[in-house]
Amino acid sequence: MTKVNEPSETEVVTVPGRRKFLNTAALAGLAGAGMSLGVTACKSESQSGAAKPAAGADAAPDYSKYEVHPGQLDEYYAFSSGGHSGEVRVYVLPSGRLLKRIPVFNIDCLTGWGITNESKQIMGTNPDGTLKYWTGDTHHVHPSYTDGTYDGRYLFVNDKIHGRIARVRLDTMECDQITELPNVQGFHGIFPDKRDPVDASINSSTRVFCGSEFHIPQPNDGRDLDDPKRYFCLLTCVDVKTMEPRWQCKVDGNMDLIATSYDGKLVCSNQYNSEGGAIFAEMMSVERDACVFLNVARIEAAIAAGKSFTIGDSKVPVVDGTRAANTDATTALTCYVPVPKNPHGVNISPDGKYYACSGKLSPTATLIAHEKVLHWFEGHIKDPRDAVVAEPEIGLGPLHSAFDNRGYCYTTLFLDSQIVKWNIEAAIKAFQGDKAAQVVVDRIDVHYQPGHGFTSMGETKEADGKFFISDNKFSKDRFLPVGPLHPENSQLIDISGEKMKLIHDTSVWSEPHDSIVVRRDIIKTRQIYSMDDFPNAVKSPKDCRVERNGKKVTVYLTSQAPAFGMTEFKVKRGDEVTLILTNHDKVEDLTHGFAIPKHNINFIVNPQETKSVTFKVDKPGVYWCYCTHFCHALHLEMRSRMLVEA
Amino acid sequence: MTKVNEPSETEVVTVPGRRKFLNTAALAGLAGAGMSLGVTACKSESQSGAAKPAAGADAAPDYSKYEVHPGQLDEYYAFSSGGHSGEVRVYVLPSGRLLKRIPVFNIDCLTGWGITNESKQIMGTNPDGTLKYWTGDTHHVHPSYTDGTYDGRYLFVNDKIHGRIARVRLDTMECDQITELPNVQGFHGIFPDKRDPVDASINSSTRVFCGSEFHIPQPNDGRDLDDPKRYFCLLTCVDVKTMEPRWQCKVDGNMDLIATSYDGKLVCSNQYNSEGGAIFAEMMSVERDACVFLNVARIEAAIAAGKSFTIGDSKVPVVDGTRAANTDATTALTCYVPVPKNPHGVNISPDGKYYACSGKLSPTATLIAHEKVLHWFEGHIKDPRDAVVAEPEIGLGPLHSAFDNRGYCYTTLFLDSQIVKWNIEAAIKAFQGDKAAQVVVDRIDVHYQPGHGFTSMGETKEADGKFFISDNKFSKDRFLPVGPLHPENSQLIDISGEKMKLIHDTSVWSEPHDSIVVRRDIIKTRQIYSMDDFPNAVKSPKDCRVERNGKKVTVYLTSQAPAFGMTEFKVKRGDEVTLILTNHDKVEDLTHGFAIPKHNINFIVNPQETKSVTFKVDKPGVYWCYCTHFCHALHLEMRSRMLVEA
Repeated sequence: MTKVNEPSETEVVTVPGRRKFLNTAALAGLAGAGMSLGVTACKSESQSGAAKPAAGADAAPDYSKYEVHPGQLDEYYAFSSGGHSGEVRVYVLPSGRLLKRIPVFNIDCLTGWGITNESKQIMGTNPDGTLKYWTGDTHHVHPSYTDGTYDGRYLFVNDKIHGRIARVRLDTMECDQITELPNVQGFHGIFPDKRDPVDASINSSTRVFCGSEFHIPQPNDGRDLDDPKRYFCLLTCVDVKTMEPRWQCKVDGNMDLIATSYDGKLVCSNQYNSEGGAIFAEMMSVERDACVFLNVARIEAAIAAGKSFTIGDSKVPVVDGTRAANTDATTALTCYVPVPKNPHGVNISPDGKYYACSGKLSPTATLIAHEKVLHWFEGHIKDPRDAVVAEPEIGLGPLHSAFDNRGYCYTTLFLDSQIVKWNIEAAIKAFQGDKAAQVVVDRIDVHYQPGHGFTSMGETKEADGKFFISDNKFSKDRFLPVGPLHPENSQLIDISGEKMKLIHDTSVWSEPHDSIVVRRDIIKTRQIYSMDDFPNAVKSPKDCRVERNGKKVTVYLTSQAPAFGMTEFKVKRGDEVTLILTNHDKVEDLTHGFAIPKHNINFIVNPQETKSVTFKVDKPGVYWCYCTHFCHALHLEMRSRMLVEA
Repeated sequence: MTKVNEPSETEVVTVPGRRKFLNTAALAGLAGAGMSLGVTACKSESQSGAAKPAAGADAAPDYSKYEVHPGQLDEYYAFSSGGHSGEVRVYVLPSGRLLKRIPVFNIDCLTGWGITNESKQIMGTNPDGTLKYWTGDTHHVHPSYTDGTYDGRYLFVNDKIHGRIARVRLDTMECDQITELPNVQGFHGIFPDKRDPVDASINSSTRVFCGSEFHIPQPNDGRDLDDPKRYFCLLTCVDVKTMEPRWQCKVDGNMDLIATSYDGKLVCSNQYNSEGGAIFAEMMSVERDACVFLNVARIEAAIAAGKSFTIGDSKVPVVDGTRAANTDATTALTCYVPVPKNPHGVNISPDGKYYACSGKLSPTATLIAHEKVLHWFEGHIKDPRDAVVAEPEIGLGPLHSAFDNRGYCYTTLFLDSQIVKWNIEAAIKAFQGDKAAQVVVDRIDVHYQPGHGFTSMGETKEADGKFFISDNKFSKDRFLPVGPLHPENSQLIDISGEKMKLIHDTSVWSEPHDSIVVRRDIIKTRQIYSMDDFPNAVKSPKDCRVERNGKKVTVYLTSQAPAFGMTEFKVKRGDEVTLILTNHDKVEDLTHGFAIPKHNINFIVNPQETKSVTFKVDKPGVYWCYCTHFCHALHLEMRSRMLVEA
């Protein structure tokens, strides 16, 4: 058992000057600075390196231009991970309205997620039928691609706590599958591929890549507890269709974010803790970490050739992508491109040419050329570091980058509480020695401490350069106080002009970790189910009945406003009751709910949908089941009695 | 087992003409009309009775007047029940921003509500320590009063599914107590009193009144299943301080909403199903239902005099408030004022003079004079119906009423999808025969099917007549589509002028059942806890340790950005671990999270807060516990290892 030194009181200290790389000794001060910025919410420091003053000094924009008046529709969907709420949210822009919470890893007693048999089967259960987990930490959401842009089929989202990946159908905006990855802890980054690296005819997502952050003993069965040098991480490739893992790749270091190339050839992840340390100080000892690139076609060829192993009970083939096993570039599965210490985030430009890796502890972004990484794999470049084509100084605490369609990159600066706009070609020229190149062209204050940032359609070849979302981790004084737990603040910035304009603050229940901004015409939803989608549907109100098989009882029920198909049904104390409810209403938006007092049951059925619940009845008496989802002028009268006989 | 007739397909039918009272035979058509309105979202019918055309015909308001730009603060808090999500929400107006979700009856894996020991104790557990319920249906939220207005102490909220009342502290905006009411099902309406009816020196809320909607056998232990005539409902009085039930009152009929008088003397509830029917048709047979008034002082005197009984295992004294037991007005505990069939909602005017009871199935609102009900209890009025001073025709499907400070009442019209503004004094004059009295002065379309509606401060003597919220049950075409489950629509209306102006649509995750609008200066929050609030606080990082008592292990841990007080801790397979975490950060908004992979644990600790969790460790291995609530530039590195030895 190890104790860290007792931390000193948090002090308000001055922001340290910009340095090329901050070394370990500077971290304590930096940490203090981050906190003090977090508190004071203002900065006296002049922004050296900024070509223009921060937007706060300018006249306020014409906000009315961005308003979405009553009856008007928004222009974009934003799919946002809900952090440790375990859910996914659907916002619309520019209004910032929240239209939907999609329960995924959490229990949601409104929809019945984690309560109905169908959702429990997706979430996963213990042998006794109880839910295995009802916590989750959704970090990254990414939709499926066709032809380099979103195709509206699926959204993939990770759970960092338990190492799970979920798939959300975008037509119904509901989760339809969850897979727990084997031998993975701290599953952080996730990204689908954009085309097949082997079969050129496949120009859509068929794989999802999942990075793991926490290195663990393999298998994690009690061995090597005190020997962190033997721990390692796996990157997992999951099949889009089956949602089963196809393969895993052992890598050095802890993986953070994931990016995939537009040609399908490479998947990469920025890494920290190259040292493989188990405690903070050990994780900070080297001067550089890496962005690791995986050669997908070579890995799959290696697996086809039997060059893989398995770990513990898992049957998933694993290849060795460590540095030590991949010294020959022409056969290597992986390429480790050195970048400054503890990078945070990696994003590919919409033209497919560059990966931007943010410095976090370095005030820089590292630009890596896709073509040069391919050259390294071909043996044309000796030093992976030569794939780096630019490394501009952009500000303190750079975390994530997004792109427009005009050659600019927008990077969140956590410590500076700013978004910095910089020019890609100018950064490359400056790296080549052009001292006249103007890299940073604008900065804007955000409120406060931005994490991820996203441009509209910016992760596709259809990047349109209209809006940028800054998902800020602190809101402090931006909203009326609501007690010790603050909302976070998702800020909308107009990036269509030369200067960025802050146009809207959207308060968000923690945590708006990721927010993918999708043009509205891409999303095509189903508004009503088909009864045939559900094999257990109660297809006619005439089929309403109670069937008994020993102590197991099945109740078949329908709903149609303002009544259920039976006004009462009888069961006996000690029964295990399965109740199947089909909503016969066909009208859009006409959802019903079904609650059973004292039995911890509530769920909804959307138009033409069927759901079921299974529960024990142990207490004799009358239980008024009622509709919980307002449906009709006589909603209050929409009830049925469950009579439990002694 | 009874089956209803197979319902016919929902048909689009014409809205029936306005009738004084709709009888049972008309209901099928009305139901159809409600549905068709629900679908078509437009009305061809001209609004007879409206003094002016609907606002839709007028020029759009100057929306920019109501905008809350980045960096500006809102004017009002809105506390909104979350319906069957089981939570309470905090919005701010006029922006409509959601600042907080307060978990109450649900499991929230972000905050750890339903996961920490402290929250499980509040929610209630089974003998084996598992949660008793994690579903709830919050209908009505009402803050505590002092001197006829909100005092910022508490918010009370009900759970309709399991018959529970919760108290939320308004300084921290967290639930601190939940009570399950005995012998109650379908707990619907809730309202605190405004002063003490006995002790004139007490001018603040000391009781909360809870109405029950579903009549059940008493006790509900398997008796009288098939004899609904023996079922009955109880109104429960709960003590604000202890949150224990003080007494209950047996009443005829099913109770819906609750209102309390400003003088503390009366509490009332609108009622349906006076027939005591168990099925829909039986509930519809009589022409009138009632608004029942309880004389609080008389009830408490009766209990003091021993004139009470108990039901089943409950020790709560019950008095008989049925019609049959209260025929003598001068000693009666209750007074049943007849109102049109199936009234929905009862609200008292800010001057304390009138109760407005909406007709629902009647196109009227019934205005009952507070003074006249007192006169009945004193024997000065023979017929309770004589307490009715007005019954204006206002539109189809009136549900709930709210008031401004200029003598106007605003009633939601579910079937008409409108808000109607009518004058109280004019309605009284018209009822007295004045044919020139202009009762209805304005109407405005809402989108669509409004349920509850609220004016700013309108449930206090400080009603200010500025804003009205219409919490609509359907949103249909108002927002971009998000699949079969639609958001609902909370619309903000400016009522400060002669004509109502629709100024903002706020999409809401189901269900914005109730939305109390409170002036911002009334709410005084605590932004940081005191470590002394928590008896189990780990007060110094030096106290971090693991203590073993047989198989029971206690882990004492602290957090201070960016580290936990121990980088690792060891336990053994089979242990029951209690982990206590105290957050030593003192900076506002600096919350940490704590997740344990594969153990279904996540919770947060706000600045200076302590929480604990208890769990079994059954699987040997390394489990990287990590901070889930973004706290610092080195948040990602904030981890601790739980080492489980075999």
